[in-house]
Amino acid sequence: MLQFWFDFGSTYSYVGAMRVEAECARRGVRLEYRPFLLGPIFTELLGIKDSPFNAQPVRGRYMWRDLERLCAKHGLRWRRPTVFPRNSVLAARVALSSPAVIGPLTRAIFLANFAEDLDISDAGVLRKLVDSAGGDGERAVELAQTPEIKARLRANTAEAQQIGIFGAPDFVVDGELFFGQDRLEDAVAWARRTLPSSSMFKRGSPPPRAP
Amino acid sequence: MLQFWFDFGSTYSYVGAMRVEAECARRGVRLEYRPFLLGPIFTELLGIKDSPFNAQPVRGRYMWRDLERLCAKHGLRWRRPTVFPRNSVLAARVALSSPAVIGPLTRAIFLANFAEDLDISDAGVLRKLVDSAGGDGERAVELAQTPEIKARLRANTAEAQQIGIFGAPDFVVDGELFFGQDRLEDAVAWARRTLPSSSMFKRGSPPPRAP
Repeated sequence: MLQFWFDFGSTYSYVGAMRVEAECARRGVRLEYRPFLLGPIFTELLGIKDSPFNAQPVRGRYMWRDLERLCAKHGLRWRRPTVFPRNSVLAARVALSSPAVIGPLTRAIFLANFAEDLDISDAGVLRKLVDSAGGDGERAVELAQTPEIKARLRANTAEAQQIGIFGAPDFVVDGELFFGQDRLEDAVAWARRTLPSSSMFKRGSPPPRAP
Repeated sequence: MLQFWFDFGSTYSYVGAMRVEAECARRGVRLEYRPFLLGPIFTELLGIKDSPFNAQPVRGRYMWRDLERLCAKHGLRWRRPTVFPRNSVLAARVALSSPAVIGPLTRAIFLANFAEDLDISDAGVLRKLVDSAGGDGERAVELAQTPEIKARLRANTAEAQQIGIFGAPDFVVDGELFFGQDRLEDAVAWARRTLPSSSMFKRGSPPPRAP
């Protein structure tokens, strides 16, 4: 099983989110979506209240160019958002309120942010996105305000910190953390080692060599 | 043409350095080695006098585990160095003093640091490494102390800053910056786009300069 840890405000999470389900399906790996909040983690680790890509403009300039190239490479839509990072709290809570459609909903929210320049912190926007993903938008936004869902998002973020997550996206397989969208294939290969049918690699042995 | 920008003290540069020449040769892309110093860049951008992997222990823990996995994946030797980061100034100057053997010498210096736990800031160690790479160790270490070579390393670091480099390793192709060892294949693919025709030269032979 592969966990996909992501923040809806994170550009590289967008690239990972658009690829993770197809890649897992293709390789027979079960997938779990784990939205969390990068904000508290950046505040704790770096002492900042903003994205490191804003706090470090040299790194930011690279990221924006890199996103254009990555989206072209993977055939993903891309429009640089006019607000960055967008507040992702409500979006994450809405995703946690919609487990039955979390895959299509996650992609719809990321596309809204990074291909359509929509305000994903807006309840009306999110309602429509849940509906478009086959869920019940009205109900999901209501649920998102409940103490239970708020607590689940806080618990996800606390678990991310406990795992040692310091950025996004991440793939976690059997306790192994892979940071960055470009490590998806490595994480999937790791997950396949633990499949019952994949008897070639035992738990704890080094990962398979690239073909 | 692909430029490989690296620092001999950088763990991820080790992985990149061990792979870049074979990958470029396989795809018919000309390669240029560009050693530089990360220290002044980290000081300018982050205000630190140490590796970010030491300054940010959460990120550091991830990196050490990741290096084990990456070396297993690529079949590279690995021993966590007892000193990190090692001072890479003399190693970089010695590499710049040895253009005829810079490929094998670069790999030898990285292996010394990250597979043999040797002090690559030591002139005696570097002398032997140059000799083992087919160069003249005595002469290279002498040249490394000259104002010309010192100025060339400073110029490389200044150019890295001007390009927008904020970490290592990097691949630069026709003004496009690719950061991180895992982007080698993307950079090589980018370099091949600028070749007049991929059928004009044989596998492994040096291609003509990009226009």
